[in-house]
Amino acid sequence: MQYRFSKKIDSLQPSAIREILKATADPAVISFAAGNPAPEAFPVEAVQKITGEILEENPILALQYSVTEGYQPLRDQLTQMVKERYGIGREFDQVLIVSGAQQGICLSAHCLLDGGDKVISENPSFIGSLNAFRSFRSQLVGVEMGPDGIDIDALEQALKDNPNTKFIYTIPNFQNPTGITMSLEKRKEVYRLALQYGALILEDNPYGELRFAGEDVPTIKSMDTEGIVIYCGSFSKVLSPGLRVGYVVAPKEIIAKLTVAKQSADVHTTILSQLICSRFLKEYDFNAHIAGLRDIYRKKSALMIREMDQNFNPAVTHTTPEGGLFLWCTLPKGSDMLAFCKAAVDQQVAVVPGSAFLTDDHGVSESVRLNFSTPTDEQIVEGIHRLGALTKKMF
Amino acid sequence: MQYRFSKKIDSLQPSAIREILKATADPAVISFAAGNPAPEAFPVEAVQKITGEILEENPILALQYSVTEGYQPLRDQLTQMVKERYGIGREFDQVLIVSGAQQGICLSAHCLLDGGDKVISENPSFIGSLNAFRSFRSQLVGVEMGPDGIDIDALEQALKDNPNTKFIYTIPNFQNPTGITMSLEKRKEVYRLALQYGALILEDNPYGELRFAGEDVPTIKSMDTEGIVIYCGSFSKVLSPGLRVGYVVAPKEIIAKLTVAKQSADVHTTILSQLICSRFLKEYDFNAHIAGLRDIYRKKSALMIREMDQNFNPAVTHTTPEGGLFLWCTLPKGSDMLAFCKAAVDQQVAVVPGSAFLTDDHGVSESVRLNFSTPTDEQIVEGIHRLGALTKKMF
Repeated sequence: MQYRFSKKIDSLQPSAIREILKATADPAVISFAAGNPAPEAFPVEAVQKITGEILEENPILALQYSVTEGYQPLRDQLTQMVKERYGIGREFDQVLIVSGAQQGICLSAHCLLDGGDKVISENPSFIGSLNAFRSFRSQLVGVEMGPDGIDIDALEQALKDNPNTKFIYTIPNFQNPTGITMSLEKRKEVYRLALQYGALILEDNPYGELRFAGEDVPTIKSMDTEGIVIYCGSFSKVLSPGLRVGYVVAPKEIIAKLTVAKQSADVHTTILSQLICSRFLKEYDFNAHIAGLRDIYRKKSALMIREMDQNFNPAVTHTTPEGGLFLWCTLPKGSDMLAFCKAAVDQQVAVVPGSAFLTDDHGVSESVRLNFSTPTDEQIVEGIHRLGALTKKMF
Repeated sequence: MQYRFSKKIDSLQPSAIREILKATADPAVISFAAGNPAPEAFPVEAVQKITGEILEENPILALQYSVTEGYQPLRDQLTQMVKERYGIGREFDQVLIVSGAQQGICLSAHCLLDGGDKVISENPSFIGSLNAFRSFRSQLVGVEMGPDGIDIDALEQALKDNPNTKFIYTIPNFQNPTGITMSLEKRKEVYRLALQYGALILEDNPYGELRFAGEDVPTIKSMDTEGIVIYCGSFSKVLSPGLRVGYVVAPKEIIAKLTVAKQSADVHTTILSQLICSRFLKEYDFNAHIAGLRDIYRKKSALMIREMDQNFNPAVTHTTPEGGLFLWCTLPKGSDMLAFCKAAVDQQVAVVPGSAFLTDDHGVSESVRLNFSTPTDEQIVEGIHRLGALTKKMF
């Protein structure tokens, strides 16, 4: 049978990351390719206690259908939380609970993009989001990044060249894959340019709480006097990704459309998951929990960077993120990056080829993404040693 | 700010059902408008025990990221279950775990429909599915139903008239909203015609286990020698809708595309929910549990029908479903159905206007959908009495 798939989906390839994740199911492989929270980052006892209480006190609520917008007490808690922590939320804004920030991205794409519309994105960027945009037949316009975030001149040029840009997609904090954080000055400029050129901003902030160095920088959404920013947050990196709970903060009119799309997408987010998140925020010290996570990732990233600096060919450079889960490692000019990734797999070490994150499917990258949250300390040391030997042998 | 939404979403209105659900949050209203399982249908103690064990034995598995395809042991269990229970599954088929059958419908639409493609559907049909198809800019072609399912001659004519039909959407068992079950003969004809005219079939079977009268009829998927049927099942009506776990059985090539779309949609289905379903199937007597559900709904539907037959104006007719959660009540020819629904709300009884389920947004209906699973027995008696008085007063 020859199936006729939609043009939206037919060109789309499975996420290289998830394919690699599957390949690295082999426990002998040291994987720097994932994006999983460290196992020790999960508040296991709290979740056990909370879940037992929820199912004891109100099992029907936890098992029955719920409303598409999300569990109202959790929406209220998040409204307050993003206000207090990030200065987010104006009169015109609302919170929608989604099944992970990924769903917020996908629903935004569904609600905003017609075939041929443009999305401007940092380049490289998160493949899950880029694929969501591609799956609605938008055209991606990539803008390069400097050490302090997106190149503002190039962004303005892209906006000029693409008048049918629906939104600018950005991960301002500890960007995936580069680990780069956008400066306050650039955030202001991105907001100003979006307003000037009539584009929305899709601000994706899954890692914002995981800052382990430097000072917090205000979110772009906190500057959103005009209602042009759709903000996506998530419990995946601060509580549990398996629960699949994220949230979108955006102007009411946009939330109304996202809600309609969500009705068709999955009716509502698993209510037991929502109840667990709500109760965790209510009954536990979220700040103390986050401080614990920051300690874990501060140590892991420092360990990986120390080992890289001691073992890598000095011609290989890397970013030094102030938070998040990833760093970006760039091979010497002219290197065959894919050959390096394959040689790494031969050494039982997995990294993600930088080309997976490019807005241009056929683009060339000399970089790879390394994740420091998932491997153990021993794996970080051993894996970086193996990669270091390769960098000295190959370049 | 004037937002420019995608054409796909801009015309879509919020589901009338969910809007009514919200309106009926008033506990004084007797709601026949929902589609919720009866509260007594939930195996609360089993879920409490199972969930505690999962979080005790393997908390990291339950909280960490998981694979898009779904928890492999659950996929294996479902492969076996649909084979044993429905004769579903050939060499070329695979199982994908989704976030409720609704997601299976939505992903199928995303993967198959380009703007202007046609979807042929029973008319009336489930609004959640119709809206998913609309949201990908397909055109709906409605085919009327008889007491034993879709009108086969009209279906063939629709296939002739619409050569760009991508698939036929059907709920063969205890259809939502009508409660009608398609005969075996018609199922064979639907399959034959789909094959002849090069259309796929999207078979939605959320209620299949809830048969409380008559004999099981084979699924269309069980006849699928050629790999043209996408089958959607769900734990929502047999375990818990709040968990959001459903599944799709379809040829590998289709599952591969659905998986890519699911990566963008929500990465994976809540893994704790999947673990609960898997363990429930493994450790509890599913047949005995289902027998209990059938008893509940057999009694509730019989009660509603008895009260209708005793209290309604005899000019009002209704279907007599052999399973599921709904029956379809048709007012005398020329009645103002919406006026009846409004008068019912004035009497504190909520029903869903039949027009909500039509493939044509502007179509006219003289029917309403009544749900017998959610209200208590007392509410059924009282609510039907109030509606009965209205039918006698208004017609």
